[in-house]
Amino acid sequence: MDYTIQIEKINQAVGILQEKNVDAWLTFVRETEHNADPALPLISPVNVTWHTALIITKSGYKVAIAGRYEIVNFERMGIWDECIKYDQSIQPALVEVLDRLAPKEVAVNYSESDTAADGLSHGMYLTLQRYLAGKPYQIISAEGVLNALRGRKTPGEVARIRAAVALTDDIIDRITGYLKPGLTELEIAQFIHNEYAKEGVVPSWDHAYCPTVTCGPDSPVGHVSPSDKYVSKAGQTVRIDQGVVLNEYISDIQRVWYLQPAHETEVPAPVQHAFDSVRAAIMAAAAILKPGVQGAVVDDAARSTIVAAGYPEYQHAVGHHIGRTVHDGSTLLGPRWERYGQTPFGIVEAGNCYTLELGVQVPGYGLVSLEEDVLVTENGNEWLGKPQTEIIVVKV
Amino acid sequence: MDYTIQIEKINQAVGILQEKNVDAWLTFVRETEHNADPALPLISPVNVTWHTALIITKSGYKVAIAGRYEIVNFERMGIWDECIKYDQSIQPALVEVLDRLAPKEVAVNYSESDTAADGLSHGMYLTLQRYLAGKPYQIISAEGVLNALRGRKTPGEVARIRAAVALTDDIIDRITGYLKPGLTELEIAQFIHNEYAKEGVVPSWDHAYCPTVTCGPDSPVGHVSPSDKYVSKAGQTVRIDQGVVLNEYISDIQRVWYLQPAHETEVPAPVQHAFDSVRAAIMAAAAILKPGVQGAVVDDAARSTIVAAGYPEYQHAVGHHIGRTVHDGSTLLGPRWERYGQTPFGIVEAGNCYTLELGVQVPGYGLVSLEEDVLVTENGNEWLGKPQTEIIVVKV
Repeated sequence: MDYTIQIEKINQAVGILQEKNVDAWLTFVRETEHNADPALPLISPVNVTWHTALIITKSGYKVAIAGRYEIVNFERMGIWDECIKYDQSIQPALVEVLDRLAPKEVAVNYSESDTAADGLSHGMYLTLQRYLAGKPYQIISAEGVLNALRGRKTPGEVARIRAAVALTDDIIDRITGYLKPGLTELEIAQFIHNEYAKEGVVPSWDHAYCPTVTCGPDSPVGHVSPSDKYVSKAGQTVRIDQGVVLNEYISDIQRVWYLQPAHETEVPAPVQHAFDSVRAAIMAAAAILKPGVQGAVVDDAARSTIVAAGYPEYQHAVGHHIGRTVHDGSTLLGPRWERYGQTPFGIVEAGNCYTLELGVQVPGYGLVSLEEDVLVTENGNEWLGKPQTEIIVVKV
Repeated sequence: MDYTIQIEKINQAVGILQEKNVDAWLTFVRETEHNADPALPLISPVNVTWHTALIITKSGYKVAIAGRYEIVNFERMGIWDECIKYDQSIQPALVEVLDRLAPKEVAVNYSESDTAADGLSHGMYLTLQRYLAGKPYQIISAEGVLNALRGRKTPGEVARIRAAVALTDDIIDRITGYLKPGLTELEIAQFIHNEYAKEGVVPSWDHAYCPTVTCGPDSPVGHVSPSDKYVSKAGQTVRIDQGVVLNEYISDIQRVWYLQPAHETEVPAPVQHAFDSVRAAIMAAAAILKPGVQGAVVDDAARSTIVAAGYPEYQHAVGHHIGRTVHDGSTLLGPRWERYGQTPFGIVEAGNCYTLELGVQVPGYGLVSLEEDVLVTENGNEWLGKPQTEIIVVKV
């Protein structure tokens, strides 16, 4: 088994605990096939069944406590200072270790705002409260630690995301060769799933709506399964939102095609104007995306650009983290809406990988929507793949 | 998309709310690719991104509240009385619906004991507390509702489990044809993964240790990844613990082989005695597994049988639910250990599907361990596949 990424992230976590001045970080999980903690795969290469506690301290001390039959997986990693196994209850070992380490605070994985930092179930929180009743250490949220740890991609992580994006770019070219009038959204999705299967990859999100395929102006927009009711037609757009999981890391890209009837020599003006406006909004966001900027400010740039071009506001954020999952961290490049909690108020950091995405409906033609994947660098950002600079025209 | 199972389970849930006298059950989730609630797939065919509330009442009224771009997936199910979409915050619609339904209690998905009923994250619990501050309805745990709903398999669910078990039985026969001395555990696991890929199925649990392969007496036991350090040898056992996900439902089966050298005519007495004792312990559990019996009592029967045969106690439960996942419900056929919380004190019900499993180490030969899958019927139980009645001998 390959622990490279987990060891990079565990070492990174120690630095973040020092930076945030948090004495100890505890990941407390069980039966993670049921209740996955999104923080766990950052530091453990396997799921666990029994109660498991992974403790990392500001001073760099690392303890894994796991059931007898699962401790071997942590011993094999070679990075934990102590690997402690138990049979009947994790409580004695967990309390003994925390008493010995004597942290002022123990950060655990819960957050109202950040789904990637909210892996602790309420039942597990109650168990922890019961185990630690009367102890002097304070239980706090690890959201600040996890936002940094998850958001700041290591070189190993960036390389894996780039590879997923490159494969997706290649599959997009294959889709261009396949598209023609008369295909249902379901048929197009099936073609894409077959390409994924050939490459040995799975969709970045739910198989039922990755890819999302939108043919023409009547198909509903959103996280909606492709349907056999809507069919690609000459003189309309096809928009596809997709990504793949390659070596545990994902891509998330939208592209738009126009099926051009033989008698047309140019893309119709409303479609071209929509494409140019969407592209301009994405470029406006990209122009200010760099370390230190607030997420909402990046969204503002795209939102004001598309509104100034005469289109309605998009009803989502212009960008979200990508990495292990399609919403891979806290700071959102999004509007200051209650739905998004505190996430649009976060600050962009070097090493973050984001989508930049938005679209508009063109009456009579269909959806025109783009999504690019970018890496935030020290001074700005760079495309992780090939951005779409022109509408892809398929002559029919 | 096929909603058959979800509609069976939603209708079953109404009956269970009446039986348990719970006014309303609320599944409150977001970003379920990160924070899966194991209750969600029972009633929703898709994951969700934004805050989503699925409310089912004792009187049979059903409300889905979801983000604008995700509500279509619930509308298409045709079973929800109301499908309400929102843009900026779920709070107004959620509060309006609950105020209108005016339940005495709202059961939500948290539990210290039952991982399958503990899908509500602590962050989401805090959000719910904030939304509902000052409201008269009481927030309670849905663990009783979910134990019944998840545990009592519908006919559609049993059919799917049977199919997964049948495929696994077939793959076991292929393994018998493949086994020989000199194979590493990793090679054997790779053979099995290749068979899964041919059948278009994935492992029942973590790919890294499903199958778990144990060659000879030195390989560590448990949820451990197959290793290239341990090799199948003549005169030793091979034990494999595996299962497949077929059409969303799983199998979980252990089999044991003996690689018999040419000069031997019988299985060595210590191996045969171990097999007979393990099999006797499983049959002792099967003899009393029926509706109304307490989980711990079934474990007692197996545990006392294996101890009476001169072996140490196994350090786990003799049986767990199977279904959508390998630990698919609350009541455990397990010992009364703190680690297992209240689950061994639960009562077995008709429609439950369980494993029966245990093993012993035979010094010099290796692990002898079996696991069968059974369905609890009105009066007893039946095998879901072909039980192992003799050690599988491979002449080498």
